[in-house]
Amino acid sequence: MMSQIPGETPPPNLATLAEDHYFSANPPPKDLEKHVKQAKDFIDFHAKEGRRLVLITSGGTTVPLEKQTVRFIDNFSAGTRGATSAEYFLEAGYAVLFLHRQFSLLPFSRHYSHAKDCFLDFLREGPDGSVVARDKDASKMLQVLRKYHDARDNNMLLAIPFLSISDYLHELRSIAQLMKPLGPNALLYLAAAVSDFFVPPDRMSEHKIQSTDAADLKKKLSSSTATSSAAPSANPSARATPASGGSVGSRNGSGGTGVVDEETFDNFDSSPTVPRSKRLVVDLDPVPKFLKNLVEGWSPEGMIVSFKLETDPSILTLKAKYSLNRYQHHLVIGNLLSTRKWEVVFVAPNRKDRWIRVPMHRRVGGSSSTSTSSGNPAAAVTTTTTTTTDKDEPLDPKSLPEGEPEIEIESLIIPAVKDLHSEYIDTFERERRGRSGTPA
Amino acid sequence: MMSQIPGETPPPNLATLAEDHYFSANPPPKDLEKHVKQAKDFIDFHAKEGRRLVLITSGGTTVPLEKQTVRFIDNFSAGTRGATSAEYFLEAGYAVLFLHRQFSLLPFSRHYSHAKDCFLDFLREGPDGSVVARDKDASKMLQVLRKYHDARDNNMLLAIPFLSISDYLHELRSIAQLMKPLGPNALLYLAAAVSDFFVPPDRMSEHKIQSTDAADLKKKLSSSTATSSAAPSANPSARATPASGGSVGSRNGSGGTGVVDEETFDNFDSSPTVPRSKRLVVDLDPVPKFLKNLVEGWSPEGMIVSFKLETDPSILTLKAKYSLNRYQHHLVIGNLLSTRKWEVVFVAPNRKDRWIRVPMHRRVGGSSSTSTSSGNPAAAVTTTTTTTTDKDEPLDPKSLPEGEPEIEIESLIIPAVKDLHSEYIDTFERERRGRSGTPA
Repeated sequence: MMSQIPGETPPPNLATLAEDHYFSANPPPKDLEKHVKQAKDFIDFHAKEGRRLVLITSGGTTVPLEKQTVRFIDNFSAGTRGATSAEYFLEAGYAVLFLHRQFSLLPFSRHYSHAKDCFLDFLREGPDGSVVARDKDASKMLQVLRKYHDARDNNMLLAIPFLSISDYLHELRSIAQLMKPLGPNALLYLAAAVSDFFVPPDRMSEHKIQSTDAADLKKKLSSSTATSSAAPSANPSARATPASGGSVGSRNGSGGTGVVDEETFDNFDSSPTVPRSKRLVVDLDPVPKFLKNLVEGWSPEGMIVSFKLETDPSILTLKAKYSLNRYQHHLVIGNLLSTRKWEVVFVAPNRKDRWIRVPMHRRVGGSSSTSTSSGNPAAAVTTTTTTTTDKDEPLDPKSLPEGEPEIEIESLIIPAVKDLHSEYIDTFERERRGRSGTPA
Repeated sequence: MMSQIPGETPPPNLATLAEDHYFSANPPPKDLEKHVKQAKDFIDFHAKEGRRLVLITSGGTTVPLEKQTVRFIDNFSAGTRGATSAEYFLEAGYAVLFLHRQFSLLPFSRHYSHAKDCFLDFLREGPDGSVVARDKDASKMLQVLRKYHDARDNNMLLAIPFLSISDYLHELRSIAQLMKPLGPNALLYLAAAVSDFFVPPDRMSEHKIQSTDAADLKKKLSSSTATSSAAPSANPSARATPASGGSVGSRNGSGGTGVVDEETFDNFDSSPTVPRSKRLVVDLDPVPKFLKNLVEGWSPEGMIVSFKLETDPSILTLKAKYSLNRYQHHLVIGNLLSTRKWEVVFVAPNRKDRWIRVPMHRRVGGSSSTSTSSGNPAAAVTTTTTTTTDKDEPLDPKSLPEGEPEIEIESLIIPAVKDLHSEYIDTFERERRGRSGTPA
C-alpha cells in the first residue's frame, strides 16, 4: 500500500504527466458531460444514504484504426461477466453504476438479448391486439422484469455506455473522481476487456485504409471518369504498405477491361510471396497503464478489483500477482478464456490464492436459455469447498462437461467480493480512527 | 460479362488455385454442415415454388489475431443495412436467406435490440402474472411481430450466423453453390462489411498476445512462485516487438516490491520515444478477392449486388466502377459512412450512375425508436426524383438534418434492385432461349 498521507496533494510525477498528455491528446467522448452529470447525481444520492456503490466496467473497448472509423481492433467480450455480476451486486444491496460497451450485454435484458432465440420468439399475440410473453417463458420473464423494475424504480442501477478505448478512459477517470463522497463504500470492479494497445490520433488515418492505393487508382480511372479533389490523406500508422515503385505484375488476367488489376496477387503459400504492397501493417503504441493513477489519484479511498483474462494456464496467477504488485490495489480476479464460467482465482495481498469453482455438473435440461440465478449458491459453495478448493492449479478445460454450468459463477464471486469489501471498510475505518489523532 | 458456355467446366486457373489453397488452409466453422443442410432445404423449397430468393450477407467479419481469440480486428457494422433490407425484400415477395454476423441486427427484432431503451423497457407486468407490451408500444410491436411470424411460419426467412472472415467465406461459398436450382431467380446482396486483411493461421499466435514478455516475466517471478510448463509460443505475425536484449529502464518507480516494472514506460510524446519493445505490430495479408470466384463459379446464374462503403467522397464512384470492372458482376451500391442513411449510388454496367436519396426532412417526433417503415415510400420516391436526382455528386454531410431520415432508404433501394433483377431475369431467359438451339 502507498503510505501517502490523506489530504496531501502528491507532487506531479511521471504518471500524472502521462495522464495529462494522454487525456489532452485523445479527445473526450461527446456525451461525457451528460454522463458525468448523471453519474454525479447517482453517486451523491447513494453516498447520502450511506449505501455501498459498485462501479462495474463491462465489455470490450474498440481501438479505431481510422478517424472516420471503418476498421477497429476489438477485445473478445460479450459483457457476460459484467452484466451477470451487476445482478448479483444488486441482490447484495449495492447500487450499481454500469459502465459498459455500447450494445454489450446489460443486466436483466442479457437473459434475452443474446439468447439462441431472437427476442421476438419470446412474444406472442395476445387477446385484443395485445403482445404478451410466450406462456412457457412468462413466469421467468416476470421475475426478471420485476427485479429490473425494482432496480430502476429505486434508482439502484445507472448504465452508461462507451465505445472506444479513449471513451472508456475518459469516462472511467471522470466517474472514479466523483466517487470520493462514498469513501470506502466505493467498490471499483473492473471487468471490461480493455485494450493494451492503440493508435495515437496524430498517426491515425483520416479515411478508411485502402487495400489498393486509391490515389493511384484515381489517376488510372480519371481518363474515363473526371473528378477532381484532394488526394486521400496518407496513413502513417496503419497503412497498406505503399508499393515501392513499379506496379505489381498480375498473372491472373481475366477479362479485365483496360483497368490494370492492381489488387490481384497470385500466391498465398506463405507471407514472403505476398508482395509487401498488398499487406497491411498496423503499428500500435501501448495504452498507458492508468490503473496506477486510479489507485493513487482518481479514487484513493475505494476498494479496487481488477480482472486478468488469459488463455495460457501457465501464466495466469503470475500475471495476476504481477498486476497486484505493480498497481498496489486490492484484488485481482484471474480467469482463463476456456474455463471462465467454471472457475476464477482470487489473488489478494498477503493471502493465499483462492480458487472459486462451480460444481462440475452441466446445467440440467432447461427448456430455454433464459434461466436466471438457478440453484442454491450456498449449497454450491459447500460442494465446491469440500471437493475442489484443495486444487491450486487451473482446471483442464477438457475435463469440463459440455454446455453451461448449473449455477452462474458470479453467484459465488460477488458474495466473496462483498466479504473482502467488508473487511476493507473495517480496516479503513480502523486506520482512519487511528490517524484521527495525528497531525496532517 | 464472361462469355463462358454454360455447362462447360472451365480449366483450373489461378483464381481456383487460390480458392483451393485458402479453403484448405483456413478450417471451416464447426456448424458449416448443419447450416448447409438448413440452407439446402430452404433453397430447394423456394426453387420448387419458382420464387425469387435473396441471399443477404450482413454485419462485419472478425479477423482473429490469436487462435484462442482475445483480440480481433472488426469492421464497423451493426448490420442495419442488411437487416432493414431483409424486411423490404420480404415485403417485395422474396424469400430471404440472412447470412449475418452473430449478434448483429436481425430483421424485425432490430427495432428493439439496439434501441435506446433496453428491451425490458418495452414490457410491463400485466394481469395475473402475465408480461405484456407497454401500451404506447403495443400496436407497433404487434405489427412487427405479425410480419415476423408471417415470415417464419411461411418459411420465408432463414437466418444463419458467422463470426470470423474465414467462417464467412466458407459459409458464403457453400451456400452460393446451393443456389443453382434457382437459376436467375437467385439474388446475392452482399451487404456484409468484409475484411480485406487477415492473419493466416500458420502465422497466428496460439495464446493471447502479451503486452509484456510473459516468458521473461515468468522467469522473474519463478523464484517466489514455482510453476513449470512450456514457455508460451512465439507470435510470429502479431506480436509485441520482442525486447532486443537489455531491460528497458523505468524512471517511473513507485513502491515496486522487488519485481522489475517491465511494462512501465515514461514518455508518450511521439512514437519514436515509445520503446519498440512496448509496441504491437500486426502484419496482415490481403484476403483473396473471392467475388470473382462467386461470379464465375459459385453462383454463375444469379444476379450479384455488392456494396462499397467509403469515407472519402472523392473516391466512392471510382472504387465502385473499379470493382464492377474487375469482377464483372451486376450492380455495385456505393455509400459513404457519414451519409449512408440518406443516399446511395447505383453503379451498373452500361448505365448512368443513379443516386437514390431520401427526402431531406428529419424524422418527425417519434416517441420511441421503434417505428417501422413509416411514411409512404412511393410518395418519397416522387419527392426524391423531382428534387435531387439531378445532383451527381455526393451530399455534403454537413447539409443533412440531425437525427434519422423520415423514411428508411432501404424502402427505396429494394424496389429499385427488384426492378433491375426483373430485367436481369428477362435478359437471362431471352439469352437462354437464343442459346437453346446451339450445341453445348
